[in-house]
Amino acid sequence: MNGKLIVFEGCEGGGKTTQIQQTEQWLRDQLGSSVPAILTTKEPGGTALGRSLRNILLDSRLEEPIAPTAELLLFACDRAQHVETFLKPHLKQGAIILCDRFTDSTIAYQGFGRGLDKNLIKQLNQIATVGLESDLTLWFDIEIEKGLARTQSRGKMDRMEKADLAFHQRVNQGFCELADQAGDRIIRIDANLSLQQVSLQIQTILTQYLLKWGFTL
Amino acid sequence: MNGKLIVFEGCEGGGKTTQIQQTEQWLRDQLGSSVPAILTTKEPGGTALGRSLRNILLDSRLEEPIAPTAELLLFACDRAQHVETFLKPHLKQGAIILCDRFTDSTIAYQGFGRGLDKNLIKQLNQIATVGLESDLTLWFDIEIEKGLARTQSRGKMDRMEKADLAFHQRVNQGFCELADQAGDRIIRIDANLSLQQVSLQIQTILTQYLLKWGFTL
Repeated sequence: MNGKLIVFEGCEGGGKTTQIQQTEQWLRDQLGSSVPAILTTKEPGGTALGRSLRNILLDSRLEEPIAPTAELLLFACDRAQHVETFLKPHLKQGAIILCDRFTDSTIAYQGFGRGLDKNLIKQLNQIATVGLESDLTLWFDIEIEKGLARTQSRGKMDRMEKADLAFHQRVNQGFCELADQAGDRIIRIDANLSLQQVSLQIQTILTQYLLKWGFTL
Repeated sequence: MNGKLIVFEGCEGGGKTTQIQQTEQWLRDQLGSSVPAILTTKEPGGTALGRSLRNILLDSRLEEPIAPTAELLLFACDRAQHVETFLKPHLKQGAIILCDRFTDSTIAYQGFGRGLDKNLIKQLNQIATVGLESDLTLWFDIEIEKGLARTQSRGKMDRMEKADLAFHQRVNQGFCELADQAGDRIIRIDANLSLQQVSLQIQTILTQYLLKWGFTL
């Protein structure tokens, strides 16, 4: 059986990182050795090339601002490398991959958030993925103020997080519209709830999808 | 008057770098203070962002190979930044810009040389340049063996130059076809001749174009 690509999306502070770790462990408990591999990865920065690019992208101290189109191409480059050298080979071998951000983040952040050309973004997503889509995307919907407060209390502020509140509200609206259009490929998670409640939502949804995909739990 | 973009193209060892320096000096002597600026630049690596990307692109010791589409996107990113933050603003101010490689190099090296999708390359060139073309491209046509021998005697061997002879022959054939299609936007320079003879060819052509463009020599 071909592997499955499960993407975790949403604004900052929704708890994606923690939930990805917990979901990985939960999947191991549920599926054991019945799948070839359970892997976690992320965009940007899922490959060695991507990590070099991620440093450039997130470096607040860059000596010159990145032009909008250049930034889109940098994300697309990271994605092309990740798809070609990591996602596709592992999916072919039957792995279940949990990926922190994918194509929808670029539409939400650069398209809705920064107002860049959504058609160009979709064109670049298509070029970079050669059509690969997630099998399931979990969208962590969180109140923006709550999410930003969480990231600030962690003392982590990169270039993305310094952008203003209105920006993040546009991004969240973007995810909301994408989820509306995507049918059951994108599922909303209420990320305002407690860690345990968010985990439970994820496990309930994953149980449904794993059974639908033919896995034995 | 809007500025002019003069691009120097061709395979390795054709003497582009030396000729760009000499042409810059010759233009200063001819045009003096009648133009706002005479500038030299290059792709990849014409901007701070581009120099970071150039290091990644040309680094033979990269821990993982770059996927073909990722490489195209990296070149396009370098180009988008260069066009937006350097070429367009300076051309708008009336500068004459001498640029070492531009869009045709990507078609010749990645398209003809490496056999990647030429339509994808043209699509990415269009995205990165937003339609900006050179006013004149000087194609340094050199016998491949001669060119590679020159670069090896300089002790410089980057990832591009390590590729095989057949690769460079395909690249040169690419430049040849591009020149055939481009009318008088791409002019062939016989780069097998001596440094002085090559300089003379360039100065003769530039004199014609500068007068055509309305400059006073």
